[in-house]
Amino acid sequence: MRNRPDPAAEFDIRLKEAAAETETMLAQLLAAECVAGEIVRPKRLIEAMRYASLAGGKRLRPFLVIESGRMFKVPRRRALLVGAALECIHCYSLVHDDLPAMDNDDLRRGRPTSHRAFDEATAILVGDGLLTLAFDILARPAAHPDAQMRIDLVMALARAAGIGGMVGGQMLDLAAEGRFETRRPQPLDELGVSRLQAMKTGALLRFACTAGAILGGADASARRAVDRFGAALGEAFQIADDLLDVEGDPSMVGKQTGKDAAANKATFVSLLGRDEARKRLHSLVARAQAALSRFGPAAATLREAARFVAERRN
Amino acid sequence: MRNRPDPAAEFDIRLKEAAAETETMLAQLLAAECVAGEIVRPKRLIEAMRYASLAGGKRLRPFLVIESGRMFKVPRRRALLVGAALECIHCYSLVHDDLPAMDNDDLRRGRPTSHRAFDEATAILVGDGLLTLAFDILARPAAHPDAQMRIDLVMALARAAGIGGMVGGQMLDLAAEGRFETRRPQPLDELGVSRLQAMKTGALLRFACTAGAILGGADASARRAVDRFGAALGEAFQIADDLLDVEGDPSMVGKQTGKDAAANKATFVSLLGRDEARKRLHSLVARAQAALSRFGPAAATLREAARFVAERRN
Repeated sequence: MRNRPDPAAEFDIRLKEAAAETETMLAQLLAAECVAGEIVRPKRLIEAMRYASLAGGKRLRPFLVIESGRMFKVPRRRALLVGAALECIHCYSLVHDDLPAMDNDDLRRGRPTSHRAFDEATAILVGDGLLTLAFDILARPAAHPDAQMRIDLVMALARAAGIGGMVGGQMLDLAAEGRFETRRPQPLDELGVSRLQAMKTGALLRFACTAGAILGGADASARRAVDRFGAALGEAFQIADDLLDVEGDPSMVGKQTGKDAAANKATFVSLLGRDEARKRLHSLVARAQAALSRFGPAAATLREAARFVAERRN
Repeated sequence: MRNRPDPAAEFDIRLKEAAAETETMLAQLLAAECVAGEIVRPKRLIEAMRYASLAGGKRLRPFLVIESGRMFKVPRRRALLVGAALECIHCYSLVHDDLPAMDNDDLRRGRPTSHRAFDEATAILVGDGLLTLAFDILARPAAHPDAQMRIDLVMALARAAGIGGMVGGQMLDLAAEGRFETRRPQPLDELGVSRLQAMKTGALLRFACTAGAILGGADASARRAVDRFGAALGEAFQIADDLLDVEGDPSMVGKQTGKDAAANKATFVSLLGRDEARKRLHSLVARAQAALSRFGPAAATLREAARFVAERRN
């Protein structure tokens, strides 16, 4: 009798491998000695960009690019490069969100945040530099030999990361906290929470899934299926995050919990209650997995990813 | 006898026309009612982005895209769109550079800076949003029907605006001011000033000139000629700026003068003296104009642009 692979064990191995390879790729892209033409990259800026982007972590977004790409036989090196570009965007958003004028956080994954380890001006430029570098990376022929595919990726990432996506979502989040005119929290209803989350965190996760389909030249119908998976996974990710904030153990979650309640912040958990939120989470996982049924065993790891996102403890 | 056109008068008309059309294009791109898919752009963010980018000004960079494009018969609408993308980058850099943690400026062109008119968090997101929008715009088929040309523009702009270009140049500028470890000014030598300026302001001006050649599908040799023009013009622009800081009338320049000397900042003027700097400026204008000699009368307006950049009073 042959050993049947255990999907969960297989998933763990693949997730760790992708994280290690992403780290290596980012380190190469941000090599200190790197030059572009006759112009030299300033040393302190590179150091701070490495600090902000080589801090380990699950690298969930690059992993999703790699795994959705694997379904469409995308060469791993291309998926890694696109995953690294996406991770540049994710890391820049953490650096800017941590700034004193934004969430004013001193710690991130147990280390001083960028503006604490360096200074505010450097942190602002680190974010601007990582954001710009993401598009530099996507424009390289190594990402895909076909210029049409590369420009499709540029467009999709710019939309996911921009004012109709992540940046806009952060703005809605600050507004809901009452940071602007009103100076008191503006609790959102279910539609408001759903929109905010789809923009702030969902859009990049969704792009991660779609990117593999773009790189693989998937047809419109396959692309829509992967997009449905990404949308459900993104929503599940955020509900799991909200549940962790209520139920999680700070020592395992790796950050302070109870922040949403303290800030009087509307989430699916505060709006629906924990039981309903958990039911919704399970149905989103089922919906995400169903979206991939047509791909058969090739989608086994991505289906595990939906479970992982829902059940994660940090 | 036919009237011979006066190049300087012709230049003024073209510059004003380009500025007005750029303003209209940016206003359309940042229309409040604009939506991307089902996702809505937050109102306050759009208002703040319009505030930061619809403040008038010479619009020199879009003008250079349009005029270099005109030499290669680029449809005006395409050049305008690419010029608007470039102006998004320029405007984002002003918003971030004005922040308290950076240059801490309260006024820009006689109006409160973005973080003064709105708040710091909004200003950070305005910058991030404009930077991302620039690449969204370049990826649109309206910029050029050929994906290869669009991805060439994305690559060239990402390099000009990134850590080997504008962002890196701002970092070098802060370092020279003694903002980091040393806490005292680190006066640069001639090579250091030249590199800083080529990165901080030169790279975007150079991109502006090259963009027209890319859009027009110019051959490698024509592209190099336009690039040489852009490099000389960029350097001339900065020396003129340094001279204005020493000699300019604040009421005409529209900003405080004498800032470089007060900050003990090395410039070509402080390193070479005013007379030598002025000589260098004239030779750069001549070099810029000579780079375009092969294009004959089609380059008349661009040649005037080099003179304008050197002689401007604000």
